[in-house]
Amino acid sequence: MKNFDINEDPHRRFNPLINEWVLVSPHRAKRPWQGQNETISTEELPKYDPTCYLCPGNVRANGMNNPQYESSFVFENDFAAMKQDEIIFEDDIKHTFFKAKPEQGISRVVCFSPRHDLTLPEMEIADIENIIRTWQKEYTDLGNIKFINHVQIFENKGSVMGCSNPHPHGQIWAQSSLPTQVEKTQNSLKSYYDKNQTTLLEDYVKAELKAGDRIVIENDHFVALVPFWAIWPYETMIISKRAVNKITNFTEDESTAFAKILKQLTTKYDNLFNTSFPYSSGIHQSPTDGLIHPEWHFHMHFYPPLLRSATVKKFMVGYEMLGESQRDITPEKSAEILRQLSDVHYKSLVK
Amino acid sequence: MKNFDINEDPHRRFNPLINEWVLVSPHRAKRPWQGQNETISTEELPKYDPTCYLCPGNVRANGMNNPQYESSFVFENDFAAMKQDEIIFEDDIKHTFFKAKPEQGISRVVCFSPRHDLTLPEMEIADIENIIRTWQKEYTDLGNIKFINHVQIFENKGSVMGCSNPHPHGQIWAQSSLPTQVEKTQNSLKSYYDKNQTTLLEDYVKAELKAGDRIVIENDHFVALVPFWAIWPYETMIISKRAVNKITNFTEDESTAFAKILKQLTTKYDNLFNTSFPYSSGIHQSPTDGLIHPEWHFHMHFYPPLLRSATVKKFMVGYEMLGESQRDITPEKSAEILRQLSDVHYKSLVK
Ligand SMILES: O=P(O)(O)O[C@H]1O[C@H](CO)[C@@H](O)[C@H](O)[C@H]1O
Ligand SMILES: O=P(O)(O)O[C@H]1O[C@H](CO)[C@@H](O)[C@H](O)[C@H]1O
Repeated sequence: MKNFDINEDPHRRFNPLINEWVLVSPHRAKRPWQGQNETISTEELPKYDPTCYLCPGNVRANGMNNPQYESSFVFENDFAAMKQDEIIFEDDIKHTFFKAKPEQGISRVVCFSPRHDLTLPEMEIADIENIIRTWQKEYTDLGNIKFINHVQIFENKGSVMGCSNPHPHGQIWAQSSLPTQVEKTQNSLKSYYDKNQTTLLEDYVKAELKAGDRIVIENDHFVALVPFWAIWPYETMIISKRAVNKITNFTEDESTAFAKILKQLTTKYDNLFNTSFPYSSGIHQSPTDGLIHPEWHFHMHFYPPLLRSATVKKFMVGYEMLGESQRDITPEKSAEILRQLSDVHYKSLVK
Repeated sequence: MKNFDINEDPHRRFNPLINEWVLVSPHRAKRPWQGQNETISTEELPKYDPTCYLCPGNVRANGMNNPQYESSFVFENDFAAMKQDEIIFEDDIKHTFFKAKPEQGISRVVCFSPRHDLTLPEMEIADIENIIRTWQKEYTDLGNIKFINHVQIFENKGSVMGCSNPHPHGQIWAQSSLPTQVEKTQNSLKSYYDKNQTTLLEDYVKAELKAGDRIVIENDHFVALVPFWAIWPYETMIISKRAVNKITNFTEDESTAFAKILKQLTTKYDNLFNTSFPYSSGIHQSPTDGLIHPEWHFHMHFYPPLLRSATVKKFMVGYEMLGESQRDITPEKSAEILRQLSDVHYKSLVK
């Protein structure tokens, strides 16, 4: 019998945001890998690609022309997962097993830059501030639509994440219901707020800053950290220090600080394996259902799949799908690695 | 305004097993695909591969030799995610945000056959019955160990699912806690059973057999269906008709019927895209915590990633990770496609 050592012994950690556990196997990073390798494109991209449906002036799938946009550009997704049609529907409560209801929604694509070859870490702070303003405008505009109660801003980056076009862009899916993960989060935030009159994430950020070992970046208004309960090897969260519940409530200073931490974090990611680091990221914030939501606290999740190198990812498969998420490196170790990486993008050194 | 048509209109469906919703976008299957294609090995495999660490007689990573096994063969995973060491641990309830506890477990590999080149659909019924007997023995042996309260039997098949070796094999992760997904399922099963005195899945199977349109295969003792709330394009469940709560309670007839439906379902899968169909599968059944568990009802989940062809999978990424799972084809359509596929393996026709 030995005493529990969280850095060495297999254990489970609890995620209070969604009330789920994760299995952590610190010793398992050593196992050899004989499995699938990802193909990562190392091709130099042109500033403008005549075949790209997101570049300025080009034609999209629906036959429409993109404008000659100069900063960001937003358009309606041509193959949206939801539609705006109002549907007549009688709730049939007899159906225990066949419960379904129509869902209204709008789905948009946000081009981050007219430049085909630039990703977030390679952009200027002013350009990222402009993306933040675009997100604010979309959150407001979509949120103001009567049937929209939730606005999900996210980015799939890299072909490993199902992204079919390297042109820097994200998406927004706005809809009438709270999506499952958001509802779970809201339930946790709400019960914490009702009990403590502070937001869960305000107290969590304080506890993390005190602990220190999972912090990746800190500035005046934001913290980037590997959450104690992270699932993905290099998963992070950007959390506002102030209990601000939506992006439209940022002060000017907060917007700039957010732009800076976004650039720094994504630069560190690229520097980790000297590759354009794939991830899915997205913002969790107050629903747009017209209620006040003091329990909500702005944060952004980054879920990157890579584990060992630019080509070896973590597979969330059998045990993870049927049992629970499992990780092979401690969050503290990942945070240490990310923290020590340079803020200067590797490509700018090569040039 | 139009009336809700579940076959045409975007909607959400509810999964009563884990209390989560899924977004269904029936119209979205039509969108073009320009993204990542998977590489699927079409290489003919030898019956015996001298470099395979699972083939009979060969040497494993830890230096040990596999026996000259003739049916199935079980060994302890050389790179297990959990360990058997007993760990001294004082629960520190002060930690709201840093909740962790040591986890004890055992992880085993189950080789399904000495033949390197055979997968489930290509095996004889007698061989699959033998795998079922092995699962029964492992469930009993592991379940009898004092610190083991849950035995997760699963298979990762194909390199897309992180499987590094085509030699037919599955895994068993047995541990002291109920994994997250199992705990969620148990909560639903329990509250249904307490209310109705029948198992949720007994009533669900009856309702599905009556509806008919999601059934893929039915025999005397088992049903294979695409659940109403399926997430993956061709996700299925095999459910026992009788409310049997664990694999060790199968009658001889049930074991044979289970072997048959396993062979049929995996054959249909292979025939879908004329490929060795990748998936993660696993059995959910009663925990081994010494309690009775009348609420549990044996079932097996199949989570296959492919969507359009042998090389184009569904990406569960940005919206799915941050919002909720989303599918592009209705479960009814998937069931119809699978139902109509032949039971005769495509490879046996070529020969
Ligand atoms: O089969 P392996 O090599 O143990 O590992 C595979 O299955 C495990 C259980 O689902 C996952 O944790 C790993 O990420 C995956 O690569
Ligand atoms: O960017 P696309 O082509 O809309 O699609 C991508 O992101 C969506 C939202 O996460 C997913 O549903 C798709 O599976 C993925 O391929």
